[in-house]
Amino acid sequence: MLLPRLLSSQTPRLVSVVGRIPPLRTWISRRVINGYCSATLPRPRAFSMAADYTSWRGLTDRRFTGRHLAPVPASGQEGLPSEAEVAALFRRDVEVRSTDTSVLFAFFAQWFTDSFLRTSHEEGGFGQNTSNHEIDLCQIYGLTEDRTAMLRSHVGGRLRTQRIAGDEYPDYLFQPRPPGGPLVVKATYAGLHDERFLTMVILGDAPDERKDFIFAVGLEHGNSTIGNTVMNVVFVREHNRVAGTLQEANPGWDDERIFQTARNVLIVMLLNLVVQEYIMHIAPIEFPLQNVPFVADGAPWNRSNWIAIEFNLLYRWHSLVPDAIGEGANRIEPQDFRNNNPLVISKGIEALISQFSAAKAGRIGLANTPRFLVDRHDPAQPSVEERTVRLMREARLATYNEYRTAFGLRPRRSFEELTGDATLRQRLTELYGSIERLEWYVGIFAEDYGRDSMMGGLLTAMVAYDAFTQALTNPLLARNVYNEATFSPAGWKEIKATRSLQQIVARNSNPTREVHASFKV
Amino acid sequence: MLLPRLLSSQTPRLVSVVGRIPPLRTWISRRVINGYCSATLPRPRAFSMAADYTSWRGLTDRRFTGRHLAPVPASGQEGLPSEAEVAALFRRDVEVRSTDTSVLFAFFAQWFTDSFLRTSHEEGGFGQNTSNHEIDLCQIYGLTEDRTAMLRSHVGGRLRTQRIAGDEYPDYLFQPRPPGGPLVVKATYAGLHDERFLTMVILGDAPDERKDFIFAVGLEHGNSTIGNTVMNVVFVREHNRVAGTLQEANPGWDDERIFQTARNVLIVMLLNLVVQEYIMHIAPIEFPLQNVPFVADGAPWNRSNWIAIEFNLLYRWHSLVPDAIGEGANRIEPQDFRNNNPLVISKGIEALISQFSAAKAGRIGLANTPRFLVDRHDPAQPSVEERTVRLMREARLATYNEYRTAFGLRPRRSFEELTGDATLRQRLTELYGSIERLEWYVGIFAEDYGRDSMMGGLLTAMVAYDAFTQALTNPLLARNVYNEATFSPAGWKEIKATRSLQQIVARNSNPTREVHASFKV
Repeated sequence: MLLPRLLSSQTPRLVSVVGRIPPLRTWISRRVINGYCSATLPRPRAFSMAADYTSWRGLTDRRFTGRHLAPVPASGQEGLPSEAEVAALFRRDVEVRSTDTSVLFAFFAQWFTDSFLRTSHEEGGFGQNTSNHEIDLCQIYGLTEDRTAMLRSHVGGRLRTQRIAGDEYPDYLFQPRPPGGPLVVKATYAGLHDERFLTMVILGDAPDERKDFIFAVGLEHGNSTIGNTVMNVVFVREHNRVAGTLQEANPGWDDERIFQTARNVLIVMLLNLVVQEYIMHIAPIEFPLQNVPFVADGAPWNRSNWIAIEFNLLYRWHSLVPDAIGEGANRIEPQDFRNNNPLVISKGIEALISQFSAAKAGRIGLANTPRFLVDRHDPAQPSVEERTVRLMREARLATYNEYRTAFGLRPRRSFEELTGDATLRQRLTELYGSIERLEWYVGIFAEDYGRDSMMGGLLTAMVAYDAFTQALTNPLLARNVYNEATFSPAGWKEIKATRSLQQIVARNSNPTREVHASFKV
Repeated sequence: MLLPRLLSSQTPRLVSVVGRIPPLRTWISRRVINGYCSATLPRPRAFSMAADYTSWRGLTDRRFTGRHLAPVPASGQEGLPSEAEVAALFRRDVEVRSTDTSVLFAFFAQWFTDSFLRTSHEEGGFGQNTSNHEIDLCQIYGLTEDRTAMLRSHVGGRLRTQRIAGDEYPDYLFQPRPPGGPLVVKATYAGLHDERFLTMVILGDAPDERKDFIFAVGLEHGNSTIGNTVMNVVFVREHNRVAGTLQEANPGWDDERIFQTARNVLIVMLLNLVVQEYIMHIAPIEFPLQNVPFVADGAPWNRSNWIAIEFNLLYRWHSLVPDAIGEGANRIEPQDFRNNNPLVISKGIEALISQFSAAKAGRIGLANTPRFLVDRHDPAQPSVEERTVRLMREARLATYNEYRTAFGLRPRRSFEELTGDATLRQRLTELYGSIERLEWYVGIFAEDYGRDSMMGGLLTAMVAYDAFTQALTNPLLARNVYNEATFSPAGWKEIKATRSLQQIVARNSNPTREVHASFKV
């Protein structure tokens, strides 16, 4: 695409000028968005994980994860390197930092994608997605109406919260207990999560004293990193703030209407943030991309969302995870990233968000995934990265070059075209023999890319396609819906006045503390 | 629209000539389809029956029936005529026959729409639809994968059938019993239907000796008229025939793949039939409308289906029901239309379909609904027509003129513009005072229309919009899916070779009997 190149950081003056002229900004944004959304054929796709051929269930039952390309015959996988050999390509020896991507970006990415890249953890569920396939803020609202009801206070449209040292946090999930006593979910939250999965798997290796501080939020992973917790706290506070505004402006409204309208406002705020700040950071342009109203209207790519297995796999940006966040006394080690709400409560969200915004994430690519995600803890259990490789194999994905073709990119003719890294080239040649055999999941992370980008060309094309066509087809952005009548004048004003994560974070922070929220260091 | 007028029966030579030139037929079909599909704003709609305002649940949970226009305030319904007065407008004194619409059309319409206009019969479920919102042939396959499994033989991709006097029929639902003994569903079909609803409501007043002959098919209403039974028998036989063809052509396929591919072929056959024969008969044109491949590709109206409450109500074409079907010894009275599989088995589908095709249905409009649907049997229970009026009131629908505007038609300025029937005008004036107050459900049936049409202008516009945008967005017709790879060469050949209901019926009939199937007398 020509436009991204024109709008790169090599033309800062051009970018700065056209970005400030509203009609030009809109026109360019529309072109950029339509360019990415037209990279491959629009949905519905012929295949999903329901079957190796096209079936009615595969076309209509979204419990099955979608797929961009048909599965290859099992025979096509013969002679491929072992899962451990592939996983080893990802192992970090020396941490490589990104050019300008913050740890906040990494945490946001995890929190954001946890809401729709939900691989079923049931037996045999690897081809199933337990999400609603929409950007619906299930992180704070839960996946179903029943669970939403558990999380609501049912007064004034608010979510259920508590005050800790004067600041607002979600309610605790578990009943108070004596130290070391059994963890029991509060009766109010019975059925909110798969309790066995939460306590045995997610909290499996968490220090016991941290478990009392698990918040009741929409998803079972909602407390699994300090990033997830911080984002949930921010959005729960923002929901309650917006509900207050709506309540004040609409004294006749009941709890239900305030809640539902606040939820709609929050989802649109998130969508704007995702397009204008998050995807914008990913895209290899330095242009103030606009979430152009009705850009999906009449677009051939405006089709119902259906999360693809490739989207699920390509988003495993484990190399973003740094060896540690920050320096000196404030340095946070991996074991303290995870399941650590006490840290969030004691430091406060302001200090942590500022620290995440100032620290660089790892650079996306091979040979940069922290060892605790690559190497086995238990010799009998695959590591996180090995599980991903296994998933790709089980899904019988097409090759790297086949995906390049499907997304409108020229196939690579050699490993030389793929990467300038001679050691890597040699290793890939040993493992795969020819570029034509290179597996997609390896190829997308092996591609060279420049300092202005944060990932290779195929990965950019695929993530942009899936992300834009998911976000911009949200029903709240549709012609009949995206208007003042839907959100009420007060809600509409909130949407129009919100331009950045910084704003959302700042207005939900303790005014006595400074805070800085940015995806870019 | 100009095209429909140009293509009416007043220009038979023009129609006949252009209809025979493939590129012209395609071009005109595309124009006609796009014309109807652009009558109102595309989905997603802002409102559904989930709430009076726009909520996330209302935008995403298709258990709630959709709606084209927002509900009017309850105060807007003050002073309207009683439900009984409105129902009385529909009462037939003397049967008026349609110009050329057959009873087969009427039975097909009922069978076809029963699969997606499924008002929940649960307490308080009037705003809920229990269908999949798709044309999915759930009439023979059931609504869910579990139920589909019950209906399959699991051998050679076939549906479970039996032979009666040499002809193929679905299996019986109930266990054999002594005369007058209790009805017990076969263990195989436990959970296929809501048994209480089936036995108490649908079969409530059926003669006991007919109940043993209820077939196990996809929907609980599948045996409720001889038309439903006949259509199910035809499509079950066609499924098994196509499965046989696929099995022969693909010796390596297992039961599952044969079944799923046969189902896909059958759904496309039905879609072609619906566009090219059924909607074609409804549309006020005499043109051989083509189901143009990929006509929905890139169309702004290509959005997920969501059945609207208006579609559900406007389709209650009770006036199509004749006082009796046929003459003399073969005359079938209303009490013999209903719940009467013994009649189908004894006469055979060939004789009945031919009789339905030769008999005229009633003319759609006011004052032409059979009394058994208008008048109360039980003074304490509303009649069928009264229930419909109640549903419209509970949904708080906008007025007739508001719907005309929403579908791009000029509002009527007076009852004179609505109808030339002076008695009706006087009655409507007494009931409503002004055309502006006229209720939509009355207005669509009160509109005058010519001999070449089968309903008024607003009803045509609304049914065409909802029907085309539902049928043509079926995932099986999408660019990635509608190709030989999906259906296999043998299945693709079946699709291409099937041009009419007559063909489908004839090849599934006993070759010793003649059969004639037509929507037009």
